[in-house]
Amino acid sequence: MRILAGDIGGTHARLIYVDDNSDCPVRHSGSYACAGYPGLMPVIESFLSHYAIDKSFDAVCLAVAGPVFAGEAVITNLPWEISADRLAAQLGTRNMFLINDLVAVAWAVQGLQPDRIVLLQAGLDQPATPRRAAVVGVGTGLGAAELVWSEGHYTAFSSEAGHAGFAPATVEQEQLLAWLHQRHDRVSVEMLLSGNGIHKLYRFFRDVLGVTESSRVAVQIAQADDPAALISRRALAADDELCTRALACFVEILGAAVGDIALHYFPLNAVYLAGGVVAGIAPLLQDHRFLHALTRKGPMRTHLQKLSVTLIMSGTAGLDGAVAYARRRCVR
Amino acid sequence: MRILAGDIGGTHARLIYVDDNSDCPVRHSGSYACAGYPGLMPVIESFLSHYAIDKSFDAVCLAVAGPVFAGEAVITNLPWEISADRLAAQLGTRNMFLINDLVAVAWAVQGLQPDRIVLLQAGLDQPATPRRAAVVGVGTGLGAAELVWSEGHYTAFSSEAGHAGFAPATVEQEQLLAWLHQRHDRVSVEMLLSGNGIHKLYRFFRDVLGVTESSRVAVQIAQADDPAALISRRALAADDELCTRALACFVEILGAAVGDIALHYFPLNAVYLAGGVVAGIAPLLQDHRFLHALTRKGPMRTHLQKLSVTLIMSGTAGLDGAVAYARRRCVR
Repeated sequence: MRILAGDIGGTHARLIYVDDNSDCPVRHSGSYACAGYPGLMPVIESFLSHYAIDKSFDAVCLAVAGPVFAGEAVITNLPWEISADRLAAQLGTRNMFLINDLVAVAWAVQGLQPDRIVLLQAGLDQPATPRRAAVVGVGTGLGAAELVWSEGHYTAFSSEAGHAGFAPATVEQEQLLAWLHQRHDRVSVEMLLSGNGIHKLYRFFRDVLGVTESSRVAVQIAQADDPAALISRRALAADDELCTRALACFVEILGAAVGDIALHYFPLNAVYLAGGVVAGIAPLLQDHRFLHALTRKGPMRTHLQKLSVTLIMSGTAGLDGAVAYARRRCVR
Repeated sequence: MRILAGDIGGTHARLIYVDDNSDCPVRHSGSYACAGYPGLMPVIESFLSHYAIDKSFDAVCLAVAGPVFAGEAVITNLPWEISADRLAAQLGTRNMFLINDLVAVAWAVQGLQPDRIVLLQAGLDQPATPRRAAVVGVGTGLGAAELVWSEGHYTAFSSEAGHAGFAPATVEQEQLLAWLHQRHDRVSVEMLLSGNGIHKLYRFFRDVLGVTESSRVAVQIAQADDPAALISRRALAADDELCTRALACFVEILGAAVGDIALHYFPLNAVYLAGGVVAGIAPLLQDHRFLHALTRKGPMRTHLQKLSVTLIMSGTAGLDGAVAYARRRCVR
C-alpha cells in the first residue's frame, strides 16, 4: 500500500509516506513549522516534491489538533481550513481520512513497542488487552480520546476535554485559579496543561507566591524558543527552586485532570499519556505525587489504583496511529 | 416477553414487570425505600409476591446507581452487593443484564414521548437522530453516560463523571470551593449537583455570603424529608431570596458541568438531562443562565450552541431504558 499520513498540530505538521508494495519498502518523513505556510496543501506539496513522491495514494490519513465535523476541520491557533473532500481530489485518493490527533494516538496504542513506553502504574486484575481506555496528550494543548473494544475490534472516539474547566484540588491551586481569573474570563484545564501552562505556573510561583527567580534562569527563559522545555529541564535537574515548584504543581494538576478524564470513560482498564511535554518529564511523573493526584477521587480511588497507566515516550505515536488507521480502514 | 426491570438508586429501588405475550398485556410497577431492606433480592421478592408474579423471566435488566464491573455492582451509599450471576440463578433467567443507571436512561432516549420532554436548546445543523450524545442525570448523585451510533445501532457507555473535581467558573464559585475545602478533603462536582448539593448551596449563601434566612423557611427545612425539594419549590415561587440565590448558583454550576461532560464526548449532537432534581426545576433551566454557562467554553462556544439540549421530564426514563435494553439484547 502507498499511504500518506500526517500529524497536524498547532505548531508543527509532520508527514510520513509509506510504500510497502515493492520488495524494497519506502518510508519518508518530514516535519514543517505550520506558521511558514498559508495552508496544509502547500506543506504536503513541499514534502512530496522534496522526496519526489507521486500522488494517487491508496490511502491518506491526516490527524489534526482540533474537532473534526463531517470531514471538515479547523486547527486551534491556525487559520487553516481543512476539507477531506478537497484534499482527496488534490491528492488523488478515494480513501481520505481526516481524524482527531488524539484519536490517532489511540490507534497507535496497540502497536507500542515496550522500549518506547514507561509504565507509571502496573494495574491490577486488568486484561492484557484493555476493553476501554483513555488516551491523554499534552503538547501545545491538552487532548484526550477514548478507545473502546466493541464488536470484535477497537474504535476510538475524540473529545475536547482540554477545554473543560480547571478544578483546583488544593488551596495552592485555588490561589492559582483566582490569579488566572483576574486575567482570563474563563480558565480551562488546557491553559495549565500545555507548554504555555508550565510557563504560567512559573510566573504564578514567582509573582503570587513570591518564590525567588534566579537571574540566570530569567535570562535563559527570555532567550528560549520554548520556555516550558527550559523550565522542565531545570526542574529535572532539581537545581532551581522556582522551576521545581512550578513542575511539582504541574504534575499534581496533570494527575488530577487525567483522573477526571478517566472517570468520564469509566469503567476502563488503562490510561495512556502522550505528547512532548509529558514525555520530557518522565522522571517527575514517576514521583508518587502524580498517581496520588490521579487516584484521589473519593470512592473511586481503589478502582483507579487498579488501572494500568502508561507513558508513551515515542514522539511519532500520532503519525504511527494515522498510518494504522489508514491500513485498518482500507482492509475492512 | 416476560421482562423484569429495575432502576436501583441510593434511595429508592423501582421495579417493573412487563408481560406482552398474551392478548392482555400485563404491566406492574412498584417503588421501595432501599434503607428498609438488607439487599436487592428481598426487594424483588417483595415486589413479586405483592403482584403474585412467577419467576422464570425471559429477561431481567437491573440498572444500578454505580459502576458495574464484570457483572458485579456496588451501589454508592448502600451496603448491597449485587451479582448478575447470583440474581440470574435466583430469578430463573438466562438473560440477566446488570447495567449502569445512566446507561439505562440513554437507552430510553429513543423512545421519549414529546410530551415528556422540554427542549432547552433547539440545536442547529444536527441530525434528527444523534450520532453521539451525552446523558446527564441529577438525583441523589450526578451520573452521566455516552450514547454512540456505531455499526448501524446505538451503544451506551457508562461513566463516573460525577466524581470529577468541581471547576469554579466565577469568583462566587471560587469562594464556594474554598468553603467546601475547609470541610472536605476533596470536592467533586456531585457534591454540589445533587439533592444534598442544593442544601449545601443554601448553607453557603447563608453562612458565608450572609444572605438572610427566613425563619419560616428555616422551620420548613428543619422539618422537611427532602430539604432540596423544598428549597427548589421556594426558588420556583421566587418568594425567598436565599432559596433563589442557591438555585441560581446551582443552575450555573449545572450548566458549566454539563458543558464539561459534553466536551468529553465531542463532537456530539445532543445532550439529555434527566433525574428528579432537574425535572423539578424546569423553569429555572429555561432561564438563559443555564445555557450561557453550558456553552461558555472558549473556542468551543459556537459548537456547543448548535447542540440540542433536552430535559427529560419523565420520572421513569431509567426503568423504560432498562426494559428497552432487555428487549434489544434478547432480539439480537
